[in-house]
Amino acid sequence: MHPANDDPALARRPANWRPLTPLHFLDRAALVFPDHTAIVHGAARLSYREFRNRSVRLAHALCRLGVRRGDAVAALLPNVPAMLEAHFGVPMSGGVLAAINTRLDAGTIAYILDHAEAKVFIVEREYAALARAALAQAAVRPAVLEVADATTPTTHRNETLGGTDYEDALANADPGFAWLWPEDEWDAIALNYTSGTTGRPKGVLYHHRGAHLLAIGNVLAAQMPRHPVYLWTLPMFHCNGWCFPWTITALAGTHICLRAVRGPELWQLMSAEGVSHLCGAPIVMKTILETPDSDRRPLSRPVTFLVAAAPPPEAVLRAMREAGFGVVHVYGLTEVYGPAVVNEWHEAWNTLPMAEQARLMARQGVRYLALEELAVLDPETMQPVPADGSTLGEVMMRGNVVMKGYLKDEEATEKAFAGGWFHTGDLAVVHPDGYVQLKDRAKDIIISGGENISSIEVEDVLYAHPAVAAVAVVAKPDEKWGETPLAFVELKPGKEATAEELIAFARQRLAHYKAPRQVVFIEIPKTSTGKIQKHLLRALALEL
Amino acid sequence: MHPANDDPALARRPANWRPLTPLHFLDRAALVFPDHTAIVHGAARLSYREFRNRSVRLAHALCRLGVRRGDAVAALLPNVPAMLEAHFGVPMSGGVLAAINTRLDAGTIAYILDHAEAKVFIVEREYAALARAALAQAAVRPAVLEVADATTPTTHRNETLGGTDYEDALANADPGFAWLWPEDEWDAIALNYTSGTTGRPKGVLYHHRGAHLLAIGNVLAAQMPRHPVYLWTLPMFHCNGWCFPWTITALAGTHICLRAVRGPELWQLMSAEGVSHLCGAPIVMKTILETPDSDRRPLSRPVTFLVAAAPPPEAVLRAMREAGFGVVHVYGLTEVYGPAVVNEWHEAWNTLPMAEQARLMARQGVRYLALEELAVLDPETMQPVPADGSTLGEVMMRGNVVMKGYLKDEEATEKAFAGGWFHTGDLAVVHPDGYVQLKDRAKDIIISGGENISSIEVEDVLYAHPAVAAVAVVAKPDEKWGETPLAFVELKPGKEATAEELIAFARQRLAHYKAPRQVVFIEIPKTSTGKIQKHLLRALALEL
Repeated sequence: MHPANDDPALARRPANWRPLTPLHFLDRAALVFPDHTAIVHGAARLSYREFRNRSVRLAHALCRLGVRRGDAVAALLPNVPAMLEAHFGVPMSGGVLAAINTRLDAGTIAYILDHAEAKVFIVEREYAALARAALAQAAVRPAVLEVADATTPTTHRNETLGGTDYEDALANADPGFAWLWPEDEWDAIALNYTSGTTGRPKGVLYHHRGAHLLAIGNVLAAQMPRHPVYLWTLPMFHCNGWCFPWTITALAGTHICLRAVRGPELWQLMSAEGVSHLCGAPIVMKTILETPDSDRRPLSRPVTFLVAAAPPPEAVLRAMREAGFGVVHVYGLTEVYGPAVVNEWHEAWNTLPMAEQARLMARQGVRYLALEELAVLDPETMQPVPADGSTLGEVMMRGNVVMKGYLKDEEATEKAFAGGWFHTGDLAVVHPDGYVQLKDRAKDIIISGGENISSIEVEDVLYAHPAVAAVAVVAKPDEKWGETPLAFVELKPGKEATAEELIAFARQRLAHYKAPRQVVFIEIPKTSTGKIQKHLLRALALEL
Repeated sequence: MHPANDDPALARRPANWRPLTPLHFLDRAALVFPDHTAIVHGAARLSYREFRNRSVRLAHALCRLGVRRGDAVAALLPNVPAMLEAHFGVPMSGGVLAAINTRLDAGTIAYILDHAEAKVFIVEREYAALARAALAQAAVRPAVLEVADATTPTTHRNETLGGTDYEDALANADPGFAWLWPEDEWDAIALNYTSGTTGRPKGVLYHHRGAHLLAIGNVLAAQMPRHPVYLWTLPMFHCNGWCFPWTITALAGTHICLRAVRGPELWQLMSAEGVSHLCGAPIVMKTILETPDSDRRPLSRPVTFLVAAAPPPEAVLRAMREAGFGVVHVYGLTEVYGPAVVNEWHEAWNTLPMAEQARLMARQGVRYLALEELAVLDPETMQPVPADGSTLGEVMMRGNVVMKGYLKDEEATEKAFAGGWFHTGDLAVVHPDGYVQLKDRAKDIIISGGENISSIEVEDVLYAHPAVAAVAVVAKPDEKWGETPLAFVELKPGKEATAEELIAFARQRLAHYKAPRQVVFIEIPKTSTGKIQKHLLRALALEL
């Protein structure tokens, strides 16, 4: 025992230890900047005073509906004020926010409601039909709160599920309600279901400690000053919008809500509201850049775009810079609260040729300050791979922004944490300067004649062909070689290329065994966020 | 039990829980920006690779000298690189850094060495004589590491205490040493002795969790981007330099060392190094502003000055703004890791008349995001005072950036934490907008005829007199009234005023009982950081 560390007179006590949580960020913003605009939504503007009071009212309403500490409150909402309020009001009731992807099918939503044992279900009337179908299939009977406003499609605005109107519930609740501080910072704050390309979705649990730390980690990664103006292009049902509902509130910023990502509206809002930051997949960049000049509006200040899922190619990076955007490439997974790795950009790199800049930006980068350890390990030996830019290993993480685990799935939790690290399932190399670069998802590796082929490597080569708009390479079972690479290709409008031509193109640039044996022309299936749905293509490859 | 909160399969494990600590900030900066300048000291420049390696070497050297987890390592150092290295190297050895005020007397330093049970004593040769005298009086026999470099005064550069040369110790240690991560985030990281105007100094213990959180809290309070350039005008022996050794390193910034605060050198460094931030008491502002034009150099960018101890008066605020400085007023105490309260400035206030701005900036403000609760309570009832801008109460704090307690002083610890709050001893009001403003230290209240008189209020009035340069009002014992206000006044050079004139001036502006009964002209004694030494004046008042 040492007095400095272990004296019982110096133990934790209420005066010097409080559970870490992002919840008090809202109280502080409402105290210090009560009249600052917290939320813009269509013609509506809410101040921090209103945002705080509405969130506390929501907490009170949920408690009245029977929510107890640890209970799940499901939400099927677009990026509207109620979704922001749920990020505070649900945990302020002691509940756990389960924000559900609005593009899921009713059966999967029913599974999630049951698995989470949802006590309350907050639904935007735009999704009333989907929610009705899900509730019909679910065993649980959650209380339903129904959200609608002037921006809800008129065809749905009065469609009811027989629940309580959200605004009525808030109006009847008390903004002076003594909201529930977490009892332990390890208490759950949110539950995010993985999209699960195979099997049932898994429920990833976030705790208050991690949500606080990642929310502040975002401030550092994006170098955000006070009062950012944040455009909600990223759905909040993805990893709680990468924790930005808490990040922006910590900085007393302005949340610009957005029901759907459409080019003219993006430009109009960026210009009129003075947007400083937004997040999203590359498809959002595409939407921005493909907006015709006539629908663009002048930006009043530089905009920082945090991109994940894929780094911007050279042409996109150049076009974004020219259009007035700074780009920050981040990487993460549902299991690490969204982004936990950032391509920390060196100022000196800005003077390099754009092709070289794009090459450097393609790397996922280094750990967030909030993530204690990031490593690329050989999953067999758990030893780090050499930092040689070529030896593949699995990306693993360890630290305070890693999930609690999967709800009610001990087997999956143990597997994810085997050997004391969180296994991402992503394969990567480490460059000599310590920056990590993804090469493939573990399941995207094609094993042909005993050789590993990175499908990303093959795709990168085909993307360089002038006629190729999109490409996805998957494994095709092969009697002789085990697997061979099969390329699905989408051509640019007005451009042409034959399968033979593309195969020859690849062979000139790759080891022969890596070049695709077959090319299939197809419209590449993508999710609404622009992520290629490889699982569909893999299934198709089995049939070909 | 609820599965989301209490399932044992979802308990903390090494993959998802690590002790919070600022130590890994240095490893990250050295990984991501190894060649970025971490430290500038005279003609010397250290990169982050060197800063990290030297800190790890120090940790290794300390372990070899017998330092074990929880052991104190004392430091008597000016703001030189060794002091920055000690902020990482000492806790990386498991040790606890006790940075000692270099202006203390040998007897007090001996007391600190004994009370802390220092195992190692790191001394700059500039303070060799002081250290020798302290060691002669101390019971402990710490190993001594002696620091000297090209900036050490030549008269002292070769003066030895019979210890080991710091550079030799580092040269013989291993930069690959596996440094000690804290076992618990509650483990002590630093020990700061309060200056203690009465009685023996108390040892305030900081833990790793609080140091991490306040270091990042500084980023938000000062809105610091990546790579700040920070000028070390604030001594690092004050509350670990308000945690800025960790803050600046988290942002991979540049630390500009400074052995002594002199105007021409400040301007030269601010200009040549592109300083972005500095901290200090008002005396540092005075030093900056009183530097003759011929010794000033053009600033290459706006500089943010974080000021504590006293807010800048209108004239100083105006002069600072005109000279190119932004001013942020912060407030804190040794017990809360330095600053934990910030005068969050509203952009709209910049358009107000300067006198009004100075009035608003005089308020201490609101809690740091890292401090969970700040309140002004009636210490008897522990109820909050009304937010009316006039009812006095005691400033109290509760949260994760409050000390563990006082080392080996359970009585003082319990007293400081009575009623579940940390008691600052400072008296304040809460304005209707929630901003807190100090009115007095509890002991600075003068009780005259049963009425409380705020000495600050009386001082503020006398400061408005055109001949007054400095003023301190203290209680003088009085048979009839108990106490009466006595004003010590320092006149501006070339200005004159009589005691009668000043008393009349005060009477016109204050309730009669608050006006000083007596005025004594004197050179006001101040600490080296510009804090008026009221305890000396109180002693003097007893003799008058």
